[in-house]
Amino acid sequence: MNRKSIIRAMKQRVYDANIALKSNGLVVLTWGNVSEINREEQVIVIKPSGVDYDVMQPEDMVLTDLKGNLLEEKSLNPSSDLATHVKLYQEFTNIQSVVHTHSDYAVAWAQANRDIPTYGTTHADTFYGSIPVTRQLDCDEVNFAYEEKTGQIIVETFKKRNINPNAIPGVVVLGHGPFTWGESPKKAVENSIVLNEVAKMAMMTEMINNQSQLIPDYLLDKHYFRKHGENAYYGQVVLNK
Amino acid sequence: MNRKSIIRAMKQRVYDANIALKSNGLVVLTWGNVSEINREEQVIVIKPSGVDYDVMQPEDMVLTDLKGNLLEEKSLNPSSDLATHVKLYQEFTNIQSVVHTHSDYAVAWAQANRDIPTYGTTHADTFYGSIPVTRQLDCDEVNFAYEEKTGQIIVETFKKRNINPNAIPGVVVLGHGPFTWGESPKKAVENSIVLNEVAKMAMMTEMINNQSQLIPDYLLDKHYFRKHGENAYYGQVVLNK
Amino acid sequence: MNRKSIIRAMKQRVYDANIALKSNGLVVLTWGNVSEINREEQVIVIKPSGVDYDVMQPEDMVLTDLKGNLLEEKSLNPSSDLATHVKLYQEFTNIQSVVHTHSDYAVAWAQANRDIPTYGTTHADTFYGSIPVTRQLDCDEVNFAYEEKTGQIIVETFKKRNINPNAIPGVVVLGHGPFTWGESPKKAVENSIVLNEVAKMAMMTEMINNQSQLIPDYLLDKHYFRKHGENAYYGQVVLNK
Amino acid sequence: MNRKSIIRAMKQRVYDANIALKSNGLVVLTWGNVSEINREEQVIVIKPSGVDYDVMQPEDMVLTDLKGNLLEEKSLNPSSDLATHVKLYQEFTNIQSVVHTHSDYAVAWAQANRDIPTYGTTHADTFYGSIPVTRQLDCDEVNFAYEEKTGQIIVETFKKRNINPNAIPGVVVLGHGPFTWGESPKKAVENSIVLNEVAKMAMMTEMINNQSQLIPDYLLDKHYFRKHGENAYYGQVVLNK
Repeated sequence: MNRKSIIRAMKQRVYDANIALKSNGLVVLTWGNVSEINREEQVIVIKPSGVDYDVMQPEDMVLTDLKGNLLEEKSLNPSSDLATHVKLYQEFTNIQSVVHTHSDYAVAWAQANRDIPTYGTTHADTFYGSIPVTRQLDCDEVNFAYEEKTGQIIVETFKKRNINPNAIPGVVVLGHGPFTWGESPKKAVENSIVLNEVAKMAMMTEMINNQSQLIPDYLLDKHYFRKHGENAYYGQVVLNK
Repeated sequence: MNRKSIIRAMKQRVYDANIALKSNGLVVLTWGNVSEINREEQVIVIKPSGVDYDVMQPEDMVLTDLKGNLLEEKSLNPSSDLATHVKLYQEFTNIQSVVHTHSDYAVAWAQANRDIPTYGTTHADTFYGSIPVTRQLDCDEVNFAYEEKTGQIIVETFKKRNINPNAIPGVVVLGHGPFTWGESPKKAVENSIVLNEVAKMAMMTEMINNQSQLIPDYLLDKHYFRKHGENAYYGQVVLNK
Repeated sequence: MNRKSIIRAMKQRVYDANIALKSNGLVVLTWGNVSEINREEQVIVIKPSGVDYDVMQPEDMVLTDLKGNLLEEKSLNPSSDLATHVKLYQEFTNIQSVVHTHSDYAVAWAQANRDIPTYGTTHADTFYGSIPVTRQLDCDEVNFAYEEKTGQIIVETFKKRNINPNAIPGVVVLGHGPFTWGESPKKAVENSIVLNEVAKMAMMTEMINNQSQLIPDYLLDKHYFRKHGENAYYGQVVLNK
Repeated sequence: MNRKSIIRAMKQRVYDANIALKSNGLVVLTWGNVSEINREEQVIVIKPSGVDYDVMQPEDMVLTDLKGNLLEEKSLNPSSDLATHVKLYQEFTNIQSVVHTHSDYAVAWAQANRDIPTYGTTHADTFYGSIPVTRQLDCDEVNFAYEEKTGQIIVETFKKRNINPNAIPGVVVLGHGPFTWGESPKKAVENSIVLNEVAKMAMMTEMINNQSQLIPDYLLDKHYFRKHGENAYYGQVVLNK
């Protein structure tokens, strides 16, 4: 495929993923954005900022270089969170797509300043352990290059706590909301869906029993590796490619 | 545009905004109303009282003068909350539209007699601080010109607490429910959507952690001014006009 | 209108009301039923028992006399709750329709053995005070004519506590769920919608503030009589007939 | 009917039941599976693993023998939970269909390690007593034949606690989620719908009153036997077959 076709296909996937966020109930108004990177072509495609989903078209997706500079004339403004995406692509070198939403349950955990605990196998099927919450950005970080610094504390959180971002493909930014990532826009959106669902289940678990226990490590291992890695046996081989 | 065209356009916008309340899940039965003011033409257009959304038409919207007197023969009765809208237009001179709903989460905070706290950036993107709850109307206020007095305690709340109604475009009336406003019916409805969403998120935040903290002022400033005022950089310049 | 036309119109209204329960989210599977009485024609029309809403037709509605005896050959079985409806029609002589559902929030209050408190004007617009919960039926009452006894404790609750069933057109039966009534199937269904909505709001009100206060009596009076009785000024005169 | 027609009909029912799980809101992404057994033909039909509901077709359903061995060439992989279904069919000899979901409220009780209490008649209409939670599988059980062991602890739970699986057609597996069963895929799906609904109601019941009481045994008996067994009088005789 030539560069032009590659980019057109990226725009379509990014568009479809943004629409999927809406149809899966993760987005109110325009509060969400998806991007995809192509490291060989050195381009990023991201949703434009603040455009209604009803009027948005695939060709409205914004093309940038790997630093987030606009590459097309007549481009719409990119999502204001672009710099966060760029930072994540720089540091998490295995990911091809980033998603940000303000989905309700995930935001509640972010605002409550708590990791989302691994209370069950629904969680373990996608996230290999608790989903971390970042620290608070300080005043300088917020006032200078805020969106980039948001990416930076996500990276810092994974490094300091020695978490593999491929095994736990999501985070909640304190006082803000969730970011997820994945090998494709479709997968990154699925991770956002799962993150919000397990956030809901975890909240309700504590409402039913405020002494609820995490699942044991051997069950976490079983469920995570049933779906991921060399010995996975969930799904269809062809379909999962 | 001549006066007739202006009024027809207002009726269409007010109708569309009422329908949007319904399609966004903020309205049960007929519990919501939207109005728009045109200060030059000295008219207000408001939803009729208690009409089913399924049968309501744009031309059913009710036209009044700036005191709420009906201006058209064969007019339907205006929303019983008209006097509240009139009061808000008199005192909040920058607003062009008012919305009232009984949306679930917002009503719950109103009934709980609590301001909705600024727990996150979702809130800060639209409301520059906690969303205030009014005091209780006393017996005389309820029995004489109740709907006007409802407008009056909203105004009183903002004045006494020194809150700018353009920066915090919404309130919850104690024991009753939310009112929002904005520069257009569309914007006022969006503010109602946001108010209910942050009301939900705030309730869940406290369920997850009953010691949750407000976001720091510098983060509130960052998010609010990222979207509002001279240095805003969110959205598309043209689209936001 | 002749008797045949009257009954056909009743069946259509009862059918429409059952469908409205479903489309308003009050009914899971087949858990709901609506009936209408015509005291002059001495007939009751009620939903058949356990029929899927997808296949149910207006002509499937079941016709009985005022004691609940079937009046038509080839009739389907009436709702198993028929005897409760009959009892309510005998004792609450102003009502023309009864609705029973297992709607989620209303059931939760029924199971929690608590009246639904008058926390706000949403409640006061329809129910002139707290919505009562019945006592528990004893073993004999359950084992002999259970459904009729269910009607009887509803009536007993209103009599003992001196509540006017026209002013508070609904109840939650302990450990079971809500019944509402009204001047027509449409109105009785609306009362079920309101009951479930205020049940939700009341639960959330207590979650946000476990010291929440009832609204003052003068505000209850204001909102209830704004919509009901001689001096009502809500809605359209013609439309409300 | 010949074997081929029987199997085609089974595939259609299993497909329809999986779609019903989705349309009833019990399934996020692909997290659910339904199977049906025909003991005379010695076959099981089950949903394929991890296939999107949008593209899945009736003929994609997977055919196995009673031990779960694939019977057709070009078969898709069966649901990874097949061995759990097989175990339940072996031990619960009256059931014809098994359903597994990760429906939200049911999972919350599973994660909270609590039986779902019999707080009301909605519960009693389908489940003749509290819905049990299993014990935790130990490390060896998880690492060797995990899915079969999941079936085994379900059976163990019913045997040790002397529960009749025909009277309580469902369970929540600790830290995992619900399984239900029934005389047909349609019935087993209905039991999943009811299980999630009563799980929601029970959670809310405790939120409203943390001293809520179980319904008395005589009321449990009344509601359960009103719908089940020789003296049932709910529904239509023909329709219930």
